[in-house]
Amino acid sequence: MNTVKLETMGQYLLNRLYEAGVKHVFGVPGDYVLGFYDLMEKSPIQHIGTTREDTAAFAADGYARCRGLGALAVTYGVGALNTVNAVAGAYAESSPVIVISGAPGVCEQRDDPLIHHRFGPFTFQREIFERITCATAVLNDPVIAFRQIDHAIASARHYCKPVYIEIPRDLVSVEGYPMPAIAAMEPSGSDKSALSEAVAETMSLLEKSVSPMVIAGIELHRRGLQNRLLELIERARLPVTATLTGKSVIAERHPAYLGIYEGAMSSEHARYMVEQSDLLLMLGVTLNEVDTGIYTAKLDPQHTIRAALNEVVISAHRYPNIALADYLNALVDAVKPSEAGFSAKPGKPVARAFPEPDRPISINRLIERINQALEPETIVVCDVGDCLFAAIDLEVHEQSEFLASGFYTTMGFAVPAALGAQVARPGHRALILVGDGAFQMTGTELSTQARLGLDSIVIVFNNSGYSTERCILEGPFNDIARWRFDRLGEVFGPLQGFDAATEESFESALIQALNNRSMPSIINVHLASDDTSSAMRRLAEHLKSKVQGERPA
Amino acid sequence: MNTVKLETMGQYLLNRLYEAGVKHVFGVPGDYVLGFYDLMEKSPIQHIGTTREDTAAFAADGYARCRGLGALAVTYGVGALNTVNAVAGAYAESSPVIVISGAPGVCEQRDDPLIHHRFGPFTFQREIFERITCATAVLNDPVIAFRQIDHAIASARHYCKPVYIEIPRDLVSVEGYPMPAIAAMEPSGSDKSALSEAVAETMSLLEKSVSPMVIAGIELHRRGLQNRLLELIERARLPVTATLTGKSVIAERHPAYLGIYEGAMSSEHARYMVEQSDLLLMLGVTLNEVDTGIYTAKLDPQHTIRAALNEVVISAHRYPNIALADYLNALVDAVKPSEAGFSAKPGKPVARAFPEPDRPISINRLIERINQALEPETIVVCDVGDCLFAAIDLEVHEQSEFLASGFYTTMGFAVPAALGAQVARPGHRALILVGDGAFQMTGTELSTQARLGLDSIVIVFNNSGYSTERCILEGPFNDIARWRFDRLGEVFGPLQGFDAATEESFESALIQALNNRSMPSIINVHLASDDTSSAMRRLAEHLKSKVQGERPA
Repeated sequence: MNTVKLETMGQYLLNRLYEAGVKHVFGVPGDYVLGFYDLMEKSPIQHIGTTREDTAAFAADGYARCRGLGALAVTYGVGALNTVNAVAGAYAESSPVIVISGAPGVCEQRDDPLIHHRFGPFTFQREIFERITCATAVLNDPVIAFRQIDHAIASARHYCKPVYIEIPRDLVSVEGYPMPAIAAMEPSGSDKSALSEAVAETMSLLEKSVSPMVIAGIELHRRGLQNRLLELIERARLPVTATLTGKSVIAERHPAYLGIYEGAMSSEHARYMVEQSDLLLMLGVTLNEVDTGIYTAKLDPQHTIRAALNEVVISAHRYPNIALADYLNALVDAVKPSEAGFSAKPGKPVARAFPEPDRPISINRLIERINQALEPETIVVCDVGDCLFAAIDLEVHEQSEFLASGFYTTMGFAVPAALGAQVARPGHRALILVGDGAFQMTGTELSTQARLGLDSIVIVFNNSGYSTERCILEGPFNDIARWRFDRLGEVFGPLQGFDAATEESFESALIQALNNRSMPSIINVHLASDDTSSAMRRLAEHLKSKVQGERPA
Repeated sequence: MNTVKLETMGQYLLNRLYEAGVKHVFGVPGDYVLGFYDLMEKSPIQHIGTTREDTAAFAADGYARCRGLGALAVTYGVGALNTVNAVAGAYAESSPVIVISGAPGVCEQRDDPLIHHRFGPFTFQREIFERITCATAVLNDPVIAFRQIDHAIASARHYCKPVYIEIPRDLVSVEGYPMPAIAAMEPSGSDKSALSEAVAETMSLLEKSVSPMVIAGIELHRRGLQNRLLELIERARLPVTATLTGKSVIAERHPAYLGIYEGAMSSEHARYMVEQSDLLLMLGVTLNEVDTGIYTAKLDPQHTIRAALNEVVISAHRYPNIALADYLNALVDAVKPSEAGFSAKPGKPVARAFPEPDRPISINRLIERINQALEPETIVVCDVGDCLFAAIDLEVHEQSEFLASGFYTTMGFAVPAALGAQVARPGHRALILVGDGAFQMTGTELSTQARLGLDSIVIVFNNSGYSTERCILEGPFNDIARWRFDRLGEVFGPLQGFDAATEESFESALIQALNNRSMPSIINVHLASDDTSSAMRRLAEHLKSKVQGERPA
């Protein structure tokens, strides 16, 4: 007779999440998920309530980028469907987010009733999530549920993508059936001969190369390989640039670091260094539109070694079945430590003193000043729009402390993702860069940070509308309502607000914000509507041609 | 030689929308849809910018309920996916909303590139929308595009459901190919012998009946049959109740109207009248969970005639292929006009004078007072939560001027849907009833109403958290941040705000709000957290049993 107290399905899910590093779950309750919330309250996992479900998903995304796994729990239909854009973004950006959706009970579903929050056949919600996650599980069978939960969590970690778990409410408290632990979903191991041959060829090319360089990409962050990259750079004395989505995968004040490379949008120096290099070692770089500067990157395959997630491509030949981690590890081992030091970075022009009296603030000066304010524990969380392009010039201190929706580019990411990041890293502080349009989408999630007493600093790049679009095509549809962002504390607090149109007023606001560690601060920075970063101007020129249509042949 | 200037695909879509009654399109621009926006600016259709895409979809839903068709235009991925919940709601609630999504150009898609806003294969967005609309069209072929557009618009009107139209940006300005007009999608006509037999049987039952009654449902509104219902009621002198989702399908001050019937949640009088009736004529009623009072309705099939969208069910036999409109029309013709008057409505208890000095305001008194303030041009737009249950007792003057997500019950519907309703009906005024939790989801869309100078009045039922859930299962997850809703005007205006904890302060605020026709007003009404309507308490008792799980057999 088995008298062991077995875990219920809800408990099992919570226990496995906790073991996997998920100490907080974001979300909004609803009756189909209330039983699970009740269990969560009794577990060591802490629930962080958000104002909406999509912001819960963005928060879980930010949390996942900081801790390797994030989770949200929402109700069926009205809750889960509200997260579709944010979860699709996590998929596009390779962020392992676990979406837990409550559902009508198995018993309730049986007669196919028209119950609230229903929008179609009960299978449709899963079918929608199948298109934006790497694995889905509907836990409607206690016999296999534990195995499904193990598999879903393992898939999220293995593929660095979101997964979907649906739990009918009448099974939350039903005991499941213990099964053998899942076989680890580690890659089946790189092809050994391909690996040694690829590393040997790489070493031989490196030895012959006069001006080798590394471009570091997003997958190094997603696979947790930042320290291995650092070792390689330092042993081989290689200069390094990063892609925009990979920004901060190496600490940006490192002497080897030359800045962001993204084709025509790069700084002159980074662009020159990359494009003159006779051997580019591209590590974990995704060749997407953003990271190639809208395909303006000049990367000669003849001089390129590209290590992707599961293959190494040198010149025109491929070594399949080589895991990025294995390749990087083998390369670090093969490289003889160099005694040479890094050459000093090219001296930057001496910045003019900040603030200058009575000077209206410009984007360039704003970024210069923010750069000085960055500290080792600052996490920069950046929304879409010109703040993202301008942020290319920020030098983030530590590894992987720049978070953005750099490829999927969904507006409204930054404020809720910063909530997730601050919850994930209590010793850190989020500096949020966000446009006025994006803030209107999700910025009121700042009320959750105020409620929790988190000390994020929000800098609103307020240029009166959708400026990226103004550069492409001007029209009244780019105008938006004017918000006095600095007055948000009137509605929810505690929250410090500031209005800044000049360098002096920004300086004063920033100092006060930095000194206040007990609540969020928001600085509404008024920028001229024609003040755009040069990167954005170049981008807009390119995009303009697409909008009015090169017609299909 | 054909020298006729042909329409482009974008122009054709805009022209057909305009002809179909869509004078306004809601949405947020983005580069994949900018070319379409540019055309829209040059068309007679007006663009109404919203802060987010989901609120654009709710606004289009509100607009569609008022005018028979609504539309929104958004960008690919980040825009369209943000509308999934609101569009699913329009599907569940039978609201004909046209979702127009921009997309990467056909040329751009060819090489399957990793371009911004992409989250998977380019077909996935359509596949997601196939699950929440009744028709989808990807306009990637100019030869058939006009036909696809005709079909999509006709489907939305015929099925009263949302449709999805995706337009690659490089085809917006490409000329399409004119085709013969689409055959009208009218129902192929009711089965004539079934119709006459069903009407004859109905008349015979009506003649024998001692206490016949009508229950009027949502489909009467969606098919525009309110006036036919009124004729039937008045000719046959039948008393009538409505379902919650059908609320206001008959003007609620009509002497024949007895209130909402929803099983155990009805008023005593409405429940008695319905459940004692020896012949219930259910017209356009959907037998969903909400309208049956969570299946507490006592509707004896032996005494019921149910006319659904496409069939008439009498007792245990069915007449298939009878359109609701045909049945209702035939019934009106068959009924001999009665000379008798309606019996006077049962007298209501005389309301105590409002306000009473120093009296904290309660939900019941609030509803009583709002009832007095309703005018013929008031459209009541109601969010989910206790405000919805409390609103059962409101008596809306005109037909179909009560809008709510009554079946799908998505929070955050009311403020943006009211924007749509006010734009659709310029002479009318929206009175928005919304809980504090729901307002935190989408309430900042009020800034668009402020920008447009619309005079909506928002009444926040502020009971400090998710009260419906508190009734089911209490826990800290039901707590939310406290917002000073009356201070929103500090952030965006012009907007009048008021705080009301007593009857006197509410009275003063309401009078000021009613008198100010140039801007929105918001009244933050503080309710005791244990002050719930009796309908909600009954509902919660029922839901509570589901949450902790009757286990499946």
